Amino acid sequence: MAEPAKRPPLMPLDEALARLLEAARPVMPFESVSTFEADGRVLAQDVVSGLTVPPRDNSSMDGYAIRIADGSAPGSVLRVAQRIPAGSVGVPLAAGTAARIFTGATIPEGADAVVMQEDTTPVASGDLDESQGFGTVRIDISPSAGQWIRRAGEDVKAGDVVLSRGERLTPAALGLAASVGCDRLQVARRPRVTLLSTGDELVMPGEVAPEAMKPGSIYNSNRFFMRALLMRLGCDVRDMGIVPDRREATIDALREAAETSDLIITTGGVSVGEEDHIKAAVQALGQLDLWSLSMKPGKPFAYGRIGEAHLTGLPGNPVSSFLTFLLLVRPFLLTLQGATRVSPVAVPMRADFDWPRADRRREFLRARRNDHGGLDLFANQSSGVLTSMVWGDGVIDTPAGQAFKAGDQVSFIPFASLLG
Amino acid sequence: MAEPAKRPPLMPLDEALARLLEAARPVMPFESVSTFEADGRVLAQDVVSGLTVPPRDNSSMDGYAIRIADGSAPGSVLRVAQRIPAGSVGVPLAAGTAARIFTGATIPEGADAVVMQEDTTPVASGDLDESQGFGTVRIDISPSAGQWIRRAGEDVKAGDVVLSRGERLTPAALGLAASVGCDRLQVARRPRVTLLSTGDELVMPGEVAPEAMKPGSIYNSNRFFMRALLMRLGCDVRDMGIVPDRREATIDALREAAETSDLIITTGGVSVGEEDHIKAAVQALGQLDLWSLSMKPGKPFAYGRIGEAHLTGLPGNPVSSFLTFLLLVRPFLLTLQGATRVSPVAVPMRADFDWPRADRRREFLRARRNDHGGLDLFANQSSGVLTSMVWGDGVIDTPAGQAFKAGDQVSFIPFASLLG
Repeated sequence: MAEPAKRPPLMPLDEALARLLEAARPVMPFESVSTFEADGRVLAQDVVSGLTVPPRDNSSMDGYAIRIADGSAPGSVLRVAQRIPAGSVGVPLAAGTAARIFTGATIPEGADAVVMQEDTTPVASGDLDESQGFGTVRIDISPSAGQWIRRAGEDVKAGDVVLSRGERLTPAALGLAASVGCDRLQVARRPRVTLLSTGDELVMPGEVAPEAMKPGSIYNSNRFFMRALLMRLGCDVRDMGIVPDRREATIDALREAAETSDLIITTGGVSVGEEDHIKAAVQALGQLDLWSLSMKPGKPFAYGRIGEAHLTGLPGNPVSSFLTFLLLVRPFLLTLQGATRVSPVAVPMRADFDWPRADRRREFLRARRNDHGGLDLFANQSSGVLTSMVWGDGVIDTPAGQAFKAGDQVSFIPFASLLG
Repeated sequence: MAEPAKRPPLMPLDEALARLLEAARPVMPFESVSTFEADGRVLAQDVVSGLTVPPRDNSSMDGYAIRIADGSAPGSVLRVAQRIPAGSVGVPLAAGTAARIFTGATIPEGADAVVMQEDTTPVASGDLDESQGFGTVRIDISPSAGQWIRRAGEDVKAGDVVLSRGERLTPAALGLAASVGCDRLQVARRPRVTLLSTGDELVMPGEVAPEAMKPGSIYNSNRFFMRALLMRLGCDVRDMGIVPDRREATIDALREAAETSDLIITTGGVSVGEEDHIKAAVQALGQLDLWSLSMKPGKPFAYGRIGEAHLTGLPGNPVSSFLTFLLLVRPFLLTLQGATRVSPVAVPMRADFDWPRADRRREFLRARRNDHGGLDLFANQSSGVLTSMVWGDGVIDTPAGQAFKAGDQVSFIPFASLLG
């Protein structure tokens, strides 16, 4: 029996993250996809606008395009000399006339304001049939120069970089790319990720009914949230299920996974006890670093390589596994795709509870925003308790050795920012 | 020509939302899906635990289970009488002995603490081969009662409702359901949503190159972000594309869409100008209410019915369309699925800029969190400017008629909370 390690030195989380992100170079190859299908993907190109948006001054209201010089005071009456629907271009606006104009339609040359339909009164009857002319309109307000006109280039100018390489695409970004005419985008290939759970105590839901569970057995919950988290990250997920706690079975599964994966994620099997076969199996096939993270929940973590495949070994506890995924594996997968913003963004918030128990590890407390602009703590902060991750809407990032009191500012990481 | 309406009374956004949510009753039918596939769906059942998690007291560390009475001071030496891997159950712990134990393994009867491996020293050599016995271990610390023991039921007790009907499932919720043995869940059927864009000025990216765009034409960007937003909401999306601005074509498209949709979403064609055919077409087939919302960007909005299908008519401006989707259509679609929490949650934050221009409408300013815990404003708040939605990470919800100054608290709605 090997000499058990005395409390190993803890690796700061930031150091672990820096090492992982370094290992994620070089990034994966890219591919061209339809802009329709690019949500959540990471851009491998700058998107440069080939046009100016809007291309010309246009109306932001249904109403009348006028010359201010013709009617700067309420009550002026103008002949409606033309009609410009969206998609059409009018003729230059003659002095003393107005143009009936619709939202999005190009402002005619000479016009310098739009008066909303609601701010006008038609003074000659007659419908808008061209054969009858367009009638006459009274302007009921005092228009100001430029009102209800959207200026050419207000959104984008030709040559502008509207989206940068390394940005992760959102619905709004897809809309912006489309608005400058991009129907296809160069993005990083989807990371291929294989999931492996280890632990003879694990049973799949559906295979054994709750009342028939053997002593010592627990349902595997990690596969479920891990797969969902990976899908939300746009990964190509393969789930190899639960690998028996035997060295040979573990080696076989890892070898197979390495052939088709950019990343293998294991849960369980990375703590210091000798019952875990993952370590030996990875070391037999490639290399593995075991880290004791200054992180609670979530101390044990492993990073390794098998051939071209990366491997991250996560702890088996559901909360530890969930948080190490969000704080380490997620940034790793984004970096692998060339993303430039990969780390969670914390917001300063007020704690509405005391936290007297400083831990030697950096601690992530599951908390929830309350209606008073502060944070409430989930009563049970045990790492086996997945209820805390459902009740909470984020974690408080508490530095190692730090206690705090109600009213203090703390650093809150909302889950919403990590689940997209 | 009909008398143009004088500034129509504005409908408060909360009233519009209340009417929409009322219209979303009764909710859609439900179906049974694999827990693996249930991310983002809305629960149609309470999930009641059939078991206690963890089922028995178990170890949260690799180490030794002991009786405190045998070694309350550092230095006590205990014979290791048994070995309990995860998934196994030991025998009652005899006085004066320790049990080698691993993370997740059941605490043997009689043991009342676990000492981490790192806090022990093996004093008899020999590996862990059963034929040679398990050796002897020295406890190097003063253990406290209950340490490193996770208690039975700490997570969940049999009979607990762990997830409630109406909750929208997240990765953590899937894990929690799995941890109590649920391999299938009853959820609301995916809403079937059909998208229709209107406007003869619209051109599809890829069909016309930027340099060949005709005057007055703009690329359709709404389809791109709308589809992505709907996919993220778990909808079954059908995109019928751009419908020509003609009454007959609009009626045909709407009739076809109504046959297969829970919701039809149109963009464009709901402002007061007579160039829009959506209103007349919906009124010919069913019913339509036109609202002028107290909302900027985003005033015009329509809600209607065609047969069993709901219809929401959104403005054509990209930002208006995006925001009315997030603030009205998204809650509507969640309510249609029976979700209980449907409205965006605002957080109080500090504005780091002056906003002197109170508007008569409730205004949603695109803003971004800065590194100083405050909010910066996007310079161009025009509703045609989709760049504001990419630059910003949320909107400031500004009440009608309200100005504010740098340093004031404002109500911020992060996009992240609306994009999942």
